[in-house]
Parts: sequence; structure tokens; C-alpha cells
Amino acid sequence: MMADDIKYMALAINEAKKAQRRDEVPVGAIIVRDGEVIAKAYNTREHGKNALHHAEIKAIDKACKRLGGWRLVGCTMYVTLEPCPMCAGAIVNARIERVVYGAHDHKAGAFGTMINLTDYPLFKPQIEGGVLETECAQLLSSFFKAKR
Amino acid sequence: MMADDIKYMALAINEAKKAQRRDEVPVGAIIVRDGEVIAKAYNTREHGKNALHHAEIKAIDKACKRLGGWRLVGCTMYVTLEPCPMCAGAIVNARIERVVYGAHDHKAGAFGTMINLTDYPLFKPQIEGGVLETECAQLLSSFFKAKR
Repeated sequence: MMADDIKYMALAINEAKKAQRRDEVPVGAIIVRDGEVIAKAYNTREHGKNALHHAEIKAIDKACKRLGGWRLVGCTMYVTLEPCPMCAGAIVNARIERVVYGAHDHKAGAFGTMINLTDYPLFKPQIEGGVLETECAQLLSSFFKAKR
Repeated sequence: MMADDIKYMALAINEAKKAQRRDEVPVGAIIVRDGEVIAKAYNTREHGKNALHHAEIKAIDKACKRLGGWRLVGCTMYVTLEPCPMCAGAIVNARIERVVYGAHDHKAGAFGTMINLTDYPLFKPQIEGGVLETECAQLLSSFFKAKR
């Protein structure tokens, strides 16, 4: 773990709480470069009516616009839930160098839990899972409990 | 193979040629529902300056907007190149029911060649690869030959 991982994951959790307040599955993501937060986003699949509107995809879209290119060199993503194949693939395609995630995803996690995209001969970001895992997982479990 | 697969793949090739004319890696995609083309798109990663701007992602974004929801039920995607993990994951997330692709992707193909997302306990679209493969692959090989 690196020095500011907890601080940045807390910002991603903040984003996840925005999703929760809008009755969306509470997942949040931020992208940091050289100590600066360059993108923040949360899941809006239902209100956005769009399968692409996961937190990670929205954050990558913002970061590409902010940096003016498709290669997010030197960037770290903090995300409250392990990325699904779509998001993990987008992270690889965008050359994000490091990914720190909170809760493991036993259904669709694509950075080690269900699949591991870093097993393949593609660009390999450095992955660290389980940071503030309890807080991140609790947001999700209380959301789904309230739904039942 | 189904009756109109060749006809629709030819439309996807048309999209790929638009990418080629703009000096983008020539990949095109269309989405069809009930015999109607509801989205057409081509890769614009370089000019769009965005890692998400693969043909499939752009087509899914258009189709979600067109249909007003994130579930692309009853939809078939035709794409000239086997989807990468990001795009294959987006197809699964969007519940696209059938995917017909042209050329196999030996570097990043995620519907059978390098990974197979349908091996995992996620939504499983029906996959058919190799339709107009020679034409689709030739577009790509002549693009990369010209680049060298």
C-alpha cells in the first residue's frame, strides 16, 4: 500500500455515496496523477439509462478529456469495487498504471477474483485490492439489503 | 450463420472503412434489432483522444440512447474484429444477445481467441466468429502494413 491510498480511497467512497443517494448501486472511482485528482465519478447506470455508465468508465472518459489523449500514463485509479471485465479492459486500454480497489467482486471481478486480466499478454497495471474493503463492501451490502 | 449475417457484416465493414479513411485502426460495428439497424459506429480512438472510443463502445452508447435503457434485449452486434475485454465486457453488461464478428484478434480477442468471457458465470451472448473474416482481416493488415 502507498502513503495516500487510504485518503484517496475515502474520496472514491464519497463518490459511491453520491450513487447511493440516487438509488444507484454504490460504486465510486477517482483518478489521480502526480497527487492531483483529475477525475471523479460514480455509477449512474439506471438514471443514465446506459450500460456503460459504471464509475470507472465515466472516470476514464473524464480523465481522457482532461488530459487530451487516450493514454492515461502515470495515473492511478481508486475504485470502491473490483472492476468488471468491461472496466478492467478499459483500464488496460487506457494504460492506467495502478489500480487500487476496495471490495472484491465475486460475481464479475476481473482483477483477480473471477478473471485476472493481468494474466494475459496485454498492458499490465499494478493491482492492489482490499483497501478500506469493509467500508466499501458495507455500502454495497446495505444497498442490496434495502432492495430486498 | 443466420440469413442476413453477410448483409449486416458488410455494413459493419462500411463503418470500418470510415475509420480507415480517417487513419484510425479500421474497425466498425453495427447493432441490429428486429431487422432494423439501430446504431452504427467506427473506431475513433486517435481523433477522439479517448481510450473508450472503440467501435463497439460507441455503438452500445448510441443504442442505449436510442432505446432509452441499459438493456439491449433482442439486439445483435456485428463487428469486424473480435471484441477486446473492454468491449466484450460492455456487450455482456448491455445484455446484447448475439455477437457476430469478422476477424479473430490474437492479441486481445475476448470471445474465444485469447480469453472467453462466456466461460464465466455472467450473461452469455451467443457468439459467431469468422463471418467475412478475409475482408475484415485484410482491412486491418493493409492498414498496419501502410503504417510500417
